[in-house]
Amino acid sequence: MSLFAKHQPVLNKAIEALHSRVFFAAFPEHPAPAMYGETADADGQAKFKNHLGKKFEELKQTNPQSWGGQEESPYTQEALNISYPLFSVDSLITNSKTAFHLWRKVSAQNRAGLLMESLDRAKKRFFEIAYATMHTTGQGYMMAFQASGPHAADRALEAIAAGYEEMNRFPEKAMWNKPMGKFNIQLNKEWHAVPKGISLVIGCSTFPTWNSVTGIYGSLMTGNPVIVKPHPGAILPIAIFVAEIQTVLAENHLDPNTCQLAVDTFDKMITQELAEHRDVKLIDYTGNSAFGSYLEALPGKIVFTEKTGVNSVILDSVDDADKAAANLAFSVNLYSGQMCTAPQNFYIPANGIDSPAGKISFDDFAQKFVTQINGLVDNPKAGPFVLGAIQNKKTSERVIESEKLAGKVILKSRTFENPQFKNARVATPIVVEVDASKKEIFSKELFGPIALLIKTKNTAQSIELAQEMAMQHGAISCAAYTTDSSVKERIADEMALAATPVSFNLVGGIYMNQNAAFSDFHVTGGNPAGNASFTNPEYVTKRFTWVGHREPVKG
Amino acid sequence: MSLFAKHQPVLNKAIEALHSRVFFAAFPEHPAPAMYGETADADGQAKFKNHLGKKFEELKQTNPQSWGGQEESPYTQEALNISYPLFSVDSLITNSKTAFHLWRKVSAQNRAGLLMESLDRAKKRFFEIAYATMHTTGQGYMMAFQASGPHAADRALEAIAAGYEEMNRFPEKAMWNKPMGKFNIQLNKEWHAVPKGISLVIGCSTFPTWNSVTGIYGSLMTGNPVIVKPHPGAILPIAIFVAEIQTVLAENHLDPNTCQLAVDTFDKMITQELAEHRDVKLIDYTGNSAFGSYLEALPGKIVFTEKTGVNSVILDSVDDADKAAANLAFSVNLYSGQMCTAPQNFYIPANGIDSPAGKISFDDFAQKFVTQINGLVDNPKAGPFVLGAIQNKKTSERVIESEKLAGKVILKSRTFENPQFKNARVATPIVVEVDASKKEIFSKELFGPIALLIKTKNTAQSIELAQEMAMQHGAISCAAYTTDSSVKERIADEMALAATPVSFNLVGGIYMNQNAAFSDFHVTGGNPAGNASFTNPEYVTKRFTWVGHREPVKG
Repeated sequence: MSLFAKHQPVLNKAIEALHSRVFFAAFPEHPAPAMYGETADADGQAKFKNHLGKKFEELKQTNPQSWGGQEESPYTQEALNISYPLFSVDSLITNSKTAFHLWRKVSAQNRAGLLMESLDRAKKRFFEIAYATMHTTGQGYMMAFQASGPHAADRALEAIAAGYEEMNRFPEKAMWNKPMGKFNIQLNKEWHAVPKGISLVIGCSTFPTWNSVTGIYGSLMTGNPVIVKPHPGAILPIAIFVAEIQTVLAENHLDPNTCQLAVDTFDKMITQELAEHRDVKLIDYTGNSAFGSYLEALPGKIVFTEKTGVNSVILDSVDDADKAAANLAFSVNLYSGQMCTAPQNFYIPANGIDSPAGKISFDDFAQKFVTQINGLVDNPKAGPFVLGAIQNKKTSERVIESEKLAGKVILKSRTFENPQFKNARVATPIVVEVDASKKEIFSKELFGPIALLIKTKNTAQSIELAQEMAMQHGAISCAAYTTDSSVKERIADEMALAATPVSFNLVGGIYMNQNAAFSDFHVTGGNPAGNASFTNPEYVTKRFTWVGHREPVKG
Repeated sequence: MSLFAKHQPVLNKAIEALHSRVFFAAFPEHPAPAMYGETADADGQAKFKNHLGKKFEELKQTNPQSWGGQEESPYTQEALNISYPLFSVDSLITNSKTAFHLWRKVSAQNRAGLLMESLDRAKKRFFEIAYATMHTTGQGYMMAFQASGPHAADRALEAIAAGYEEMNRFPEKAMWNKPMGKFNIQLNKEWHAVPKGISLVIGCSTFPTWNSVTGIYGSLMTGNPVIVKPHPGAILPIAIFVAEIQTVLAENHLDPNTCQLAVDTFDKMITQELAEHRDVKLIDYTGNSAFGSYLEALPGKIVFTEKTGVNSVILDSVDDADKAAANLAFSVNLYSGQMCTAPQNFYIPANGIDSPAGKISFDDFAQKFVTQINGLVDNPKAGPFVLGAIQNKKTSERVIESEKLAGKVILKSRTFENPQFKNARVATPIVVEVDASKKEIFSKELFGPIALLIKTKNTAQSIELAQEMAMQHGAISCAAYTTDSSVKERIADEMALAATPVSFNLVGGIYMNQNAAFSDFHVTGGNPAGNASFTNPEYVTKRFTWVGHREPVKG
């Protein structure tokens, strides 16, 4: 049985889900023994530990210039001492060009089969990937498992499904038969989905697989060879994915260089040289806005970016203020605010929030919010695991510096003890009250566990500011609480104009940070936060070009 | 009956044709009385003449700053003296912003119905548009009728069909029901196709409707208000389309400013001010490369361009050399080479072309080509009507200057008499033999009736050069003649990599210049000629953003 035939049933379900947008997941998100086997967790942890201090020798790329790697665990603040093969930009490009001409001739069906097989192989390593993710990003165990494993694999499958569908959207051939009165003009036509060329996928330090596999699989599915340039601080999780892709390619007598890993080190970054190379046609990027905007302006490239954004919460009226505060407190604590979808700006009217129990004053809501944050942080069975660790020292510094913002510090950031990792770099959220007039404070992303409670005149001003921030500075997510249907409609409309998805009235176990494959579009491109746009059709259609040839039918 | 219901059967056929890519046309291309009525031609001509020397008062845009217009007929070389209302950029943008918030709330069905109705209204004016096109572009009567009337309307319908389909690609609502073990998370989700905002469509002087209606209808269909900035030399044809759109909008109590005409004059062009305006989000452009590349580099805009290209003909082997030469001679003569799809570079091996009758030498083929050109030019019943007139004086000058190219002039350009228009600005093709080593000569577009016969070492070099020209300088069309299936496959593959569609072995009444709606993609974006990409899916998907909102299902 071909790999395509093996995986076709799941592929068909994925395509169906893309269109129905109801719940679908091909990879179980819970790290339960029932799903992954009794010893999967322990085995994965052991495999992760076995990488430490060694060369990562799983890649099938040959003749490295040297070996290097500078990953450090935010939990132990010690170097992982894993070294990876390093290659010159020239050799990466040369290998990619060679691989291109083989890979582009592999049929869409075979590409889909091979790529889905590689996801199945990666699935067997989700726990190993989870520990690798924890010790590079600082994510808590559960998030590290879910985001880097099943959720990433589902997003990758989504890109495969979208790519497969788009490549089959138009016929391979047709006879064009034009009546001209006395005779017909008949042309045999054929259409080719021609891949753009070398695809560069630039990873980030916080979500090394989730933010990269879509670009990798989207480009591969549409026939482009890929060079994966991970963040030097978070290599191992995506290295495992790339190794599995290369293994499947090699097993099927294809060129493993179709998907290369291009590791670099902080002291000698190769991203810019790669991005500017004339043979690189596609770039996927997650990271800061300055570099993202530089990439977007490079001439002759198709660029998909996820940059920074300023995510808002609009508080108008609530059914249950404590439940709303609890939900938002979780969103702020989750991975210590280091998610692109985490909230930062909380707009609260000066005269408070309506509720069935009457007005809740600004200060009362602020207090509820602080109480919920503290409650979660101080819960030893939940706090340390929800907050995880801080990936980058600069984030810790930013949190401390936020005390100096021109506002009133309602809750200071502090540390806490992680029972497993005494040296973990941690920081709890800081909460600062800011007046709506002080736009200079809240009109930029303050990455990390930093929440600003912004006192507005009324909900109309809250909406106006949330929309303005999204339009001018980008936004990836938004939450709103309102029990008034006309206010709800207005928020939905105004934030839609700013291309920002809104989660209304979330309570319980679902959060504005969360974003589900096959259902929630992500960074669709209508505001400065980027145009990653997974996975709407243009995420894959921009990776190839339709070209049609034609010839008269022989009489 | 709603306009949508009225037009739905044709819309459905158009969507079907987009996917089958077999022949489909909603608007008859032949100006036959049986199709359009006995008096349609005479009436259209009379209507055109009635515009001359007057104000064009059909637009529903109010309070112009002044009136102006500088169109001139290439057939009479006299001013048309039609004046149009002129508006400031500020008032155009202000009107467009107001119109946006009404138009974006009109349903996709209603938009499709209104827009298709406007095409039906324009259909009643195809002859008037044809004469307007002749006397602004210099096109011959038949091309002016077909390109500006039915072919343009079919392309517009194609954009409506593609837009309608994409806007309905995902559900408006769905319930997302995620099993969590002991309970389910249930969210009501809704998705909105949010238009990007003001769309600017910049017309060209040679195809004032064909190259503009796709952008106009593509943007309108996806909910964006449009500002149409015609070339100051070719306004009337597209003004009639815009007037019909405004009439239908007004009849249906919608804002006519949803589609505004923004006429300017050569001495005070407003294109740049419009393009750079921060509220302009979408730009469609046809014209020279320098301005097109400037537009493409504007930050924060989605830009669709059709710039210049260098179209190649690869001559390897033929079944019938005379038929091939005749077909190519027609392509060069047609509208005096002023089409974006016209051939310029003819690659012929130094040792000739294979044929069933043996080798045809380079010189012999050149002679056949020249004979066919002269035969057509000197046929008084065909020549003047196929060649038409030269739109721009600079094109005439370029043809004369081409005599100085570092090659051997095989055929000089000359004039001829147009029986209807004694003062027509005309020029027949110049044919110059150039050596393959002289890339500096043939690596740029020489717009107009200029054919370069390039002597190559062999077909391999011909293919290499054709591909290189397309990749480096852009190409929109390519023709190839070969009876060898392996050569054919190689040309198809190499030119596909350069994103250039190839017409193989055309003889008889079908030409490389021609490009059919619903079947032939046009400028799909894989080379520097542009990324207009009508009509593949991204031509419409890039005009709006998917935004999804969600809220827990109430228990």
